Amino acid sequence: MKTAAVIMAGGKGERFWPTSREKRPKQFHSLTADGKTLLQLTKERIGDIVQTEDVYVVTNKKYANLVREQLPDIPVENILAEPVDRNTAPCIGFAASVIEKKYGDAVMIALPSDHLIKSNTLFRDSLKDAVDIAETRDTLVTIGIMPVYPETGYGYIHFSKNGGSIYKVLEFIEKPDFDKAKKYFDSGEYLWNSGMFVWKTSVILNEIREFIPELTEGLERIKCYYQTEDFDHVLEAVYPGFKSQSIDCGIMEKITDLSKVYTIPGSFGWNDVGSWLALERIRLIDKNNNALQGNIVNIDCRDVLVHGSEKRLIALVGLEGIVVVDTDDALLICNKENTQDVKKVVEFLKKHDKREFL
Amino acid sequence: MKTAAVIMAGGKGERFWPTSREKRPKQFHSLTADGKTLLQLTKERIGDIVQTEDVYVVTNKKYANLVREQLPDIPVENILAEPVDRNTAPCIGFAASVIEKKYGDAVMIALPSDHLIKSNTLFRDSLKDAVDIAETRDTLVTIGIMPVYPETGYGYIHFSKNGGSIYKVLEFIEKPDFDKAKKYFDSGEYLWNSGMFVWKTSVILNEIREFIPELTEGLERIKCYYQTEDFDHVLEAVYPGFKSQSIDCGIMEKITDLSKVYTIPGSFGWNDVGSWLALERIRLIDKNNNALQGNIVNIDCRDVLVHGSEKRLIALVGLEGIVVVDTDDALLICNKENTQDVKKVVEFLKKHDKREFL
Repeated sequence: MKTAAVIMAGGKGERFWPTSREKRPKQFHSLTADGKTLLQLTKERIGDIVQTEDVYVVTNKKYANLVREQLPDIPVENILAEPVDRNTAPCIGFAASVIEKKYGDAVMIALPSDHLIKSNTLFRDSLKDAVDIAETRDTLVTIGIMPVYPETGYGYIHFSKNGGSIYKVLEFIEKPDFDKAKKYFDSGEYLWNSGMFVWKTSVILNEIREFIPELTEGLERIKCYYQTEDFDHVLEAVYPGFKSQSIDCGIMEKITDLSKVYTIPGSFGWNDVGSWLALERIRLIDKNNNALQGNIVNIDCRDVLVHGSEKRLIALVGLEGIVVVDTDDALLICNKENTQDVKKVVEFLKKHDKREFL
Repeated sequence: MKTAAVIMAGGKGERFWPTSREKRPKQFHSLTADGKTLLQLTKERIGDIVQTEDVYVVTNKKYANLVREQLPDIPVENILAEPVDRNTAPCIGFAASVIEKKYGDAVMIALPSDHLIKSNTLFRDSLKDAVDIAETRDTLVTIGIMPVYPETGYGYIHFSKNGGSIYKVLEFIEKPDFDKAKKYFDSGEYLWNSGMFVWKTSVILNEIREFIPELTEGLERIKCYYQTEDFDHVLEAVYPGFKSQSIDCGIMEKITDLSKVYTIPGSFGWNDVGSWLALERIRLIDKNNNALQGNIVNIDCRDVLVHGSEKRLIALVGLEGIVVVDTDDALLICNKENTQDVKKVVEFLKKHDKREFL
């Protein structure tokens, strides 16, 4: 059976303002020293498992050209351009429909485009296990991440300890409060939900039919018209009518018969790069816990994270616990405890119609 | 008797990096909403007391063109260009010699070019009193400032309480430690030494002859050649041989016969703009004690001072007690407690030969 990959690259990355912008969100930027963008790294790390012609990217139509530029090897028809954003459930349904049309039933790996992974080898091993079971059984397989601290910003997966390298899922849990997260973390029975899934197209389309039946007719029209000249018109007609919802809320958390839901606990050094603070975990840290990139003069600073350019000079004096992100036309200076509030800056810019900075 | 003013505009303003640069130090920048530079404001506020053709500016020769640009009304020969910096004692001697050559003995007002003053009216009244006494008696008059807190970065003047609007000086005191500054502040018998002086040229040249006799021969040569074609050559020959010293250390603190030294306590809202923090006292402060200038998005900040431009956007999130100065090619972010350490940035840039940022 064919194995195809679907990279979901439609996100806005607002918490990565001012680097991430409406015209070029986070996934189209490099945050690592190798200069490769998050999207390129995502494609690269599945190279051993999926052939380039079987890699699909779902993105907003305004980013289709960026995807072509950054992934010139994948066929143009594999870039699935959404007319509007509708979150991951419609996105995965769209891709599954297209893949099924092309290959008949196939194994489909669904991956966010904006994560970083430390060990590609371990990642591939986890993914291969997932593909194996998804191909041989009608399962929904999710890649779980062994928690390294009690994060409250992720969903959790409660898993059954019976199993080999693959485990039954007992429950999907939405973002918990700190006390619950602490409990989950301490127990060793919970994984972070990474948003990476493996299943056959037939399996996920069945689940969509059961839990989000209102998507099905539209998805069938999309499947029918893919690679015809009317495809774009059909997409424009169908997509805006889809309700925006995530695959987690729309399906995973609703499945009552969990006997077909499995998880593979990954320990490959996963980083969802959810806020600027996440860069600390991938940057060189000096003896005063500073992670500095750019043309920088540091006088007596501690715990400072800077993402700058080689051009403009940034002088830091006596600072502690600050994040600085410097771009050509906009500068962010943020307390480390408030990196989630970078979204508020973006909201402010929208509200006050400062579109040139969005 | 003629009254002339000498504006001392040769400073480097290193603590005002990155706005203040080697090519254009602090005094040639505007820090106020009126757009006038500190130099222009200094010239403007003596307008009622000194005629434009009697205003002299001593500066490093590399800034002579900047002075001409910013003060186009004053005669070109009134711009006294030092070949090298030698602090205020040679600078004042230089100006006194030139003025004496031009007018014979005259009253001379010596003013730093980089201070801000709130009430020009009160300032002029103090200055007029000083000119009156300097003209009628052979005195050295210094403008003192009634302290508003126990600053350790200024020299102090101990003054005798006997007198009208003008008081005898008992002692000049170098920058004190905090305990002494606190004692001075509490006593009400001490003033800040503002670095503004009024005296006759004959009087100050006599003092120089007594306390810095090694300057006298050079100054006499300067006087002799002023407005001749050999003037520049003589300056180049003489000036580098002068020892660098301030008028305070070189003369004021050494005078044993203090009967001729007077002070006028000014209460005109004096600000020596000694560090970026000084801007807080002249900027509009919001309810969270932020003083923000520029194109700024402020999310939950307190006690933040920003000096930015109208171009680049600066977004501040959750910060407290920070100073931000943004220029085209360099950015400063500094803890408010460390604004004196901005000099360390300049030292670092010199040491590492990053001359383009000096």
